[in-house]
Amino acid sequence: MFEDKISELSLSTPSSFIRAILKTTQDSNIISFAGGLPNPISFPKEKLAESTQRVIDEYGSKVFQYSVTAGLRELREYIAEHLNKTQRMDVDADEIIVTTGSQQALDMIGKVLINPGDTVILEEPAYLGAIQAFSQYRPAFKAIPLEYDGMDMDRLEEKLKEGNVKFIYTVPNFQNPSGLTYSKEKREALHDLTRRYECILVEDDPYGDLKFEGNPYGYISKNEFDGSILLGTFSKTVTPGMRIGYMIIRNPELRLRINTAKEAADLHSNVFSQYILWDYLTHNDLAEHIGKIKQLYRSQSSAMIKAMEEYFPECVSFTRPEGGMFIWATLPENITAMELFAKAKEKQVVFVPGNPFYIDGRAASTMRLNYTNCDEATITEGIRRIGSLIKE
Amino acid sequence: MFEDKISELSLSTPSSFIRAILKTTQDSNIISFAGGLPNPISFPKEKLAESTQRVIDEYGSKVFQYSVTAGLRELREYIAEHLNKTQRMDVDADEIIVTTGSQQALDMIGKVLINPGDTVILEEPAYLGAIQAFSQYRPAFKAIPLEYDGMDMDRLEEKLKEGNVKFIYTVPNFQNPSGLTYSKEKREALHDLTRRYECILVEDDPYGDLKFEGNPYGYISKNEFDGSILLGTFSKTVTPGMRIGYMIIRNPELRLRINTAKEAADLHSNVFSQYILWDYLTHNDLAEHIGKIKQLYRSQSSAMIKAMEEYFPECVSFTRPEGGMFIWATLPENITAMELFAKAKEKQVVFVPGNPFYIDGRAASTMRLNYTNCDEATITEGIRRIGSLIKE
Repeated sequence: MFEDKISELSLSTPSSFIRAILKTTQDSNIISFAGGLPNPISFPKEKLAESTQRVIDEYGSKVFQYSVTAGLRELREYIAEHLNKTQRMDVDADEIIVTTGSQQALDMIGKVLINPGDTVILEEPAYLGAIQAFSQYRPAFKAIPLEYDGMDMDRLEEKLKEGNVKFIYTVPNFQNPSGLTYSKEKREALHDLTRRYECILVEDDPYGDLKFEGNPYGYISKNEFDGSILLGTFSKTVTPGMRIGYMIIRNPELRLRINTAKEAADLHSNVFSQYILWDYLTHNDLAEHIGKIKQLYRSQSSAMIKAMEEYFPECVSFTRPEGGMFIWATLPENITAMELFAKAKEKQVVFVPGNPFYIDGRAASTMRLNYTNCDEATITEGIRRIGSLIKE
Repeated sequence: MFEDKISELSLSTPSSFIRAILKTTQDSNIISFAGGLPNPISFPKEKLAESTQRVIDEYGSKVFQYSVTAGLRELREYIAEHLNKTQRMDVDADEIIVTTGSQQALDMIGKVLINPGDTVILEEPAYLGAIQAFSQYRPAFKAIPLEYDGMDMDRLEEKLKEGNVKFIYTVPNFQNPSGLTYSKEKREALHDLTRRYECILVEDDPYGDLKFEGNPYGYISKNEFDGSILLGTFSKTVTPGMRIGYMIIRNPELRLRINTAKEAADLHSNVFSQYILWDYLTHNDLAEHIGKIKQLYRSQSSAMIKAMEEYFPECVSFTRPEGGMFIWATLPENITAMELFAKAKEKQVVFVPGNPFYIDGRAASTMRLNYTNCDEATITEGIRRIGSLIKE
């Protein structure tokens, strides 16, 4: 009795290809470069347990009661201060809405901005979770190819000239899936174009703090974010299990719309976890903690690149990320990633074929490799096996 | 630059009137019957702190990592077993999806089922959070008046005959806002009508466990829920701050659609809190804990009814809930609840005027009174003040 009752909106929503892959690769003998999981080193387990006891002792029932939609005031103040200090921004706590992970932010952006048929510009390849969230609201996607230093700005301007662009979505630092980062020139050009064509820039920065060397780049619009929506998260630096992300929105009308959408979506994010996270952040040295994660990921990334240089034939190109969790490899055109995936799975090693990162789901010759969940010897062995298959 | 970019979906979403009221009544001198907050007695604070330490010790990184969309397997198994034991149902853990509070379930039901213009049948008065969540997807609401023992079944059948009804939404036990409960006859009639007219019955039961005397009624469709969507929550019995609710859906197609919508909405609900809640539920006596909450609410409810009998003129009628958190009062037609609200606020006592619980937002002569957050003396004093104003 349900089959004919499903809404257009639901019929437009693709289910996640990656989650389907992950289910088939839970076998612990399989070497998996397919996931996107942070390494457990990033979870400060005992410190979070201490924070739990402390906030219950200090704040009692408040940590268990219903709370405000925009999020715990103390946490929003911490986020604002942190960004103002580390990125020299001028964010006010009132401009922040805490979200149930960044995924909720993507869903709400789609909900509040997209009418069916509106143009939404994505990178090519694009973050899968964003494709999924926005697809629900039936936009007309336009994909702008990523060059080594960011979107192709000429192609972007062509699309902007065609009009009806609601927003541009970008992951400017160590992008998922490509690992690529925008150059200073492309950052300025992108910011300039969005202003000139009066479209909204949605900047998603889950990996920015995981820059292997030097200070994080921060947001493209960090000095002028009136026309932007900025997303951040604690999933890659503290814990994804608590589902705590945030949006920064300066425009009051848009912020009110997002706040109302959030009210309708879940009333507010888990306030127990917001208290714990806030307590953890104010009682510990986050920079030191992130330092350990970066050190590990840099070694793992180097091990994978070294193995790829050794075992992949020269016809395979790949990115060399400055941070984050992913490497993107491009095979010769006569090899499709899905075929390689099937063969690799037989050899007990998996990755994500590029297909789901393209809005047309095309048969791609690209693949995403995650390096954060294997030790260096395992990374080398997995890449060796994939390399032999490519050579065949 | 944002004002002309807001989607139809967002423009259709009312913001919560109650949340607006609550913001204006934070002053601690005000006697508030306006909220819908559980009494802090319902939060087993120290037990939850113990559970936190235990799950971190026993499960380590798993409680902080990304998790599955449908929810923690162990928690879903607990819920299934609990319902099968206490309500003699035959729920399987696979039929359960954990949600970020019941509000998320309402949002996803709207998203997955409503095309603009579809008929959705609600009770009159109806739960505000459901009106808000469903409104986003632009249904044609039809409201069926609540009689003392449930919806008017003749009126319901008239509407069902008109066709195009996607689903009926009901809160059968101690409804918010009315406090009313369906009789056995109306339960059977409602179940029968939904089957006969092949429409989906959405049953939301947040208060069912808080029945003052005897065993809970449970779901209307508990013996045959193939055509139903059942919602439950731990917000009123353990803690709302963790935002943990659940949906029970037997139909595999619909369950898959909801699961995909959840994936796009927040990937999964906070798994740290799911572990803690599950550990708490399996290490403590929930029935004993709920017993304490029920005892308190019964006294508070009785105190409010006694005060209303004493201080309200006879022209005011009101419900006498068998459980839950609310009493609904009906004033003479020449008094609007908004006028009374304004005067009551001057006298430092607030309630929720009935208006937002009607789909047309009409000027109502009804009001919702919550009794779970004041002691008996305060309840009596608040009702005395409102009573004098009505008499004026």
